[in-house]
Amino acid sequence: MQKEIVKPTTLSGFMELLPPEQIIFNKVIAILKEVYESYGFYPLDTPILEKSEVLLAKAGGETETQIYRFLKGDTDLTMRFDLTVPLAKYVAKNYNELTFPFKRYQIGKVYRGERAQKGRFREFYQADIDIVGDEELSIYNEIEIISIIYEVFKRLKINDFIIKINNRKLLTGFIQLIDLKNKNIEIMRIIDKTSKISKFEFLAELEKIGVLKDLGEEIYKFINLKDDVIKTLYSYQGKNEMFDQGLNELEQVYNNVVNFGVPSEYLAIDLSIARGLDYYTGTIYETFLLNHFDVGSVCSGGRYDDLASFYTQQKLPGVGVSIGLTRLFSILRANNYLSDMLNTPSEVLVIPLDKEIHFAYSIASFFRLKGIKSYVYFEDKKMKQILKYANRNKIRYVVFFGKKEQEMQMITFKDLDTGIQKFISLDEAFKIIIDNTNL
Amino acid sequence: MQKEIVKPTTLSGFMELLPPEQIIFNKVIAILKEVYESYGFYPLDTPILEKSEVLLAKAGGETETQIYRFLKGDTDLTMRFDLTVPLAKYVAKNYNELTFPFKRYQIGKVYRGERAQKGRFREFYQADIDIVGDEELSIYNEIEIISIIYEVFKRLKINDFIIKINNRKLLTGFIQLIDLKNKNIEIMRIIDKTSKISKFEFLAELEKIGVLKDLGEEIYKFINLKDDVIKTLYSYQGKNEMFDQGLNELEQVYNNVVNFGVPSEYLAIDLSIARGLDYYTGTIYETFLLNHFDVGSVCSGGRYDDLASFYTQQKLPGVGVSIGLTRLFSILRANNYLSDMLNTPSEVLVIPLDKEIHFAYSIASFFRLKGIKSYVYFEDKKMKQILKYANRNKIRYVVFFGKKEQEMQMITFKDLDTGIQKFISLDEAFKIIIDNTNL
Repeated sequence: MQKEIVKPTTLSGFMELLPPEQIIFNKVIAILKEVYESYGFYPLDTPILEKSEVLLAKAGGETETQIYRFLKGDTDLTMRFDLTVPLAKYVAKNYNELTFPFKRYQIGKVYRGERAQKGRFREFYQADIDIVGDEELSIYNEIEIISIIYEVFKRLKINDFIIKINNRKLLTGFIQLIDLKNKNIEIMRIIDKTSKISKFEFLAELEKIGVLKDLGEEIYKFINLKDDVIKTLYSYQGKNEMFDQGLNELEQVYNNVVNFGVPSEYLAIDLSIARGLDYYTGTIYETFLLNHFDVGSVCSGGRYDDLASFYTQQKLPGVGVSIGLTRLFSILRANNYLSDMLNTPSEVLVIPLDKEIHFAYSIASFFRLKGIKSYVYFEDKKMKQILKYANRNKIRYVVFFGKKEQEMQMITFKDLDTGIQKFISLDEAFKIIIDNTNL
Repeated sequence: MQKEIVKPTTLSGFMELLPPEQIIFNKVIAILKEVYESYGFYPLDTPILEKSEVLLAKAGGETETQIYRFLKGDTDLTMRFDLTVPLAKYVAKNYNELTFPFKRYQIGKVYRGERAQKGRFREFYQADIDIVGDEELSIYNEIEIISIIYEVFKRLKINDFIIKINNRKLLTGFIQLIDLKNKNIEIMRIIDKTSKISKFEFLAELEKIGVLKDLGEEIYKFINLKDDVIKTLYSYQGKNEMFDQGLNELEQVYNNVVNFGVPSEYLAIDLSIARGLDYYTGTIYETFLLNHFDVGSVCSGGRYDDLASFYTQQKLPGVGVSIGLTRLFSILRANNYLSDMLNTPSEVLVIPLDKEIHFAYSIASFFRLKGIKSYVYFEDKKMKQILKYANRNKIRYVVFFGKKEQEMQMITFKDLDTGIQKFISLDEAFKIIIDNTNL
């Protein structure tokens, strides 16, 4: 009788990896954690579900239509769509229990009901770091963030990347300076699109919101400054307080980054970076893979003056960046990055040659105690099949263990990479694995 | 002007830890991962959201009312309520890409809309391991599972625990043997409640489903066998095939566990363990904290013959256990377990004494490169406040770095535990931290 079966599918836009890929993904997460923790960031883990009134306290615009929101009984619930809002809630809620500056990282899944398309995920990991101050926060934190981004990418063995910075005060000051203050937000949104549209379209969009062509040209020229940017910016100095403050901050950040261990070729000032979201108030960051500019920024963030204004009267300035990890991972894997990461479940497979399984078991235990992943193949299969299993799982070493080995207190040890097999002691086998030498 | 604010709350039944507790929670997860991976288990990460028809393919009974289920557009979605159903889907879906036995662990959040009460969570972590075979799976995997449970608890420095085992074939065989085969499922459910009800209630429940008092007494006596259990079970042998098979399996598992490294005092046969869920077909496990029997089993599971029957015609037997991690953690912390786990964000805080922050930064970098968590305190605060910050974050060492230190190429190094302060070289400071010696 045929059973009735349901087709085992995974929702589109939801990444579900095969085991060897999952190992690599987990290694990426482990590297991020290690770097973040080395800088003294606390881990944080907030719920995926929150009350809608809490998560949507400040929302509006695009976010609302993209969220997963539903009723459970009388409770209006929303799945988190980023890790910043939960952080704001957390800091406001636990203000008295925290010490400031509060440094936290969070790596977790977020949910956005966007139309699923290549490279867009509905469930995806974000990896965020933020440093939140109480009333004030030193600009040095903004510099440290850059050195952390740099270290993360280097540790992932990505070399072809660039961290672009800008300062929102500079942009806002410039817009004030050319008397377009009342169109600040709309102009920021258009600037934010610069990299995706032509100059013609850029000017057309500005005209649509009432910016004359001459001023449009001036904005275009300004955001496209490339050489000696800081020197050129000084020619605008002294006319607008906010601009001057932004220039001062940008200069401080740009000039100090090298002292914080980031080689200058990994950093560029780019005045066309605006970060659409309106809560940024100072330094802003975007990070690009040089060979994959088309995918956009893979690590973005900035300085904000008031993280949790929707939850508390307390002024909590901060700075942070977020990596869209699922997307970054899928780009990296599609382009053969991370390929030197070992993705095998085990180094040693122990194959018992007789029914006395527990002797084989003690061999695997020996390796595990030494920190080497190892297990016994328990199933009653032909040797050919077992070796095929080891191969498919990319397990390099196999141990054969039977009566002869037991009597002689030795093991038959085979390196599947070289095909060489020897009759040696456990300690010798251990040394071979540790030294990573060929048999 | 007062801003309008939303109260920053977290849903009840959703655990959200303060930073020092979160560090400990993450260490528990890290230990579980390390143990699981040492046994060659692949990591797995499946979506939290799935199509309802997929997740609920086999559901019914209690689960349905407890789930988080909603429509997004036309799609009927459910948040996963365990990690077993997603595993079944995954294995059926990726059958051709996997090698068998497929060993996987998954540590992730699951969702159950139960009434929130002490020790009950609506969002909680489960930590699952399963070994899934193709058509067949050796009984040795059932023994290995016990040795993994043992190792996990030992590694968490929990000593007062016991792993109880039983075998479903034995129970089912016994019920057949006393001619109650047609009431098998109902009887299993009542047996499952044994530890929570009196003998009187037990017999009354059985009478309710039509089991006469004499037979009820016999069942009660059977499931409460304590001494020489296996020997006593032999007195029932030879009357029912399933019973005999169960006895044989139970004996194999029980007798071999010691050879798999588990001291006998950590294991007990308990015939009253039934595991309500009806997909178990062989060995079943429950793990109890000796001093907290009242909280019930903290790590349960068993052998099943057909994992993915709702998704595939392929017969996939397996064995696995699940730890309700959020609940276990809250019990452990409430009872002062895990207290020796270091829960500080950093070992060394560097305090710059003048404006040349980047020299201080290079000190922190030095420590980070050596694998010691360290960062600079950037804020412009009074020394007393900075030291209070270090204390509240349980940071043991502080470095003072100013002009004098810079000129002499030394650091002022203070051990906040002892209050002792010395003017020493970076290398000396490093040695002190590594040796964990007092200044």
